[in-house]
Amino acid sequence: MTVQLEGPLAARGDVPLGDRCPMNRALALVGNRTALLLLREAFYGATRFHQLWRRVGVTEAVAAQRLRELVAAGVLEKQPYREPGQRTRSEYVLTRAGHDLMPVVIGLIEWGTAHAPGGGAAVITHDGCGAEVRTVVRCATGHDVAESDVVIEAGGDPS
Amino acid sequence: MTVQLEGPLAARGDVPLGDRCPMNRALALVGNRTALLLLREAFYGATRFHQLWRRVGVTEAVAAQRLRELVAAGVLEKQPYREPGQRTRSEYVLTRAGHDLMPVVIGLIEWGTAHAPGGGAAVITHDGCGAEVRTVVRCATGHDVAESDVVIEAGGDPS
Repeated sequence: MTVQLEGPLAARGDVPLGDRCPMNRALALVGNRTALLLLREAFYGATRFHQLWRRVGVTEAVAAQRLRELVAAGVLEKQPYREPGQRTRSEYVLTRAGHDLMPVVIGLIEWGTAHAPGGGAAVITHDGCGAEVRTVVRCATGHDVAESDVVIEAGGDPS
Repeated sequence: MTVQLEGPLAARGDVPLGDRCPMNRALALVGNRTALLLLREAFYGATRFHQLWRRVGVTEAVAAQRLRELVAAGVLEKQPYREPGQRTRSEYVLTRAGHDLMPVVIGLIEWGTAHAPGGGAAVITHDGCGAEVRTVVRCATGHDVAESDVVIEAGGDPS
């Protein structure tokens, strides 16, 4: 069973949803493999260009371009820093919007461990109690929500 | 505060993590904008090619190629169906691995509504109680886990 659709979304029109769908807009900003791997490094505490770049596996030019896009998207913020005797440089810090991607990043790490063979696992635990951490879908009342109990409806423009 | 790293991961080596990182492997399988939008349609209950394709906004050829890749990745499964008087065709059904991407897809819809302006919102609710649905990170003991209390360590090969 998949999710339930309500309202115009349920009509399954022939027209591409395009930017009316917030997932389209999210993917336009962060739906790029290199961008998501740079965000992984940012969640792992990297802030400086070489820290962010070197574990991602792309050229410096590609990493720099993706970082510019992530700054333009409001996901990372540039902040100046200066080491003694050096010129001022920029570091990249997650914004509130960036931190809000945490469940997506953890969800991908978790999914890859479970379903994408060919390499190592990631063990993700809670520092408070040591128990395994998972990404779950839950309602404001506190219920775990099964996929078939998720109802999605197109709302108005939130802005 | 970002997540905590333990073990070799914390050493911040210079070598790209590549396929040793399960997030890299996940993105190699599903880290493509069109693939994720096709999965959105699959979560929305679409199973047949034209249902899956028509709201995504790519050519039929691109959609067909991405669907082949999602089948090869084990995220969708082809199943035969036949309408009266027609030849047998295939429909695409989410596998267990596909369903396990639900938090990532819901997370992206939610994030786009909150942080990607320029279009409508998605209102996501729980059919059981009507409360708003969110993607959260939680531990097996039942605690909500703050980003700074997430500990990630590279484990062995799970397979």
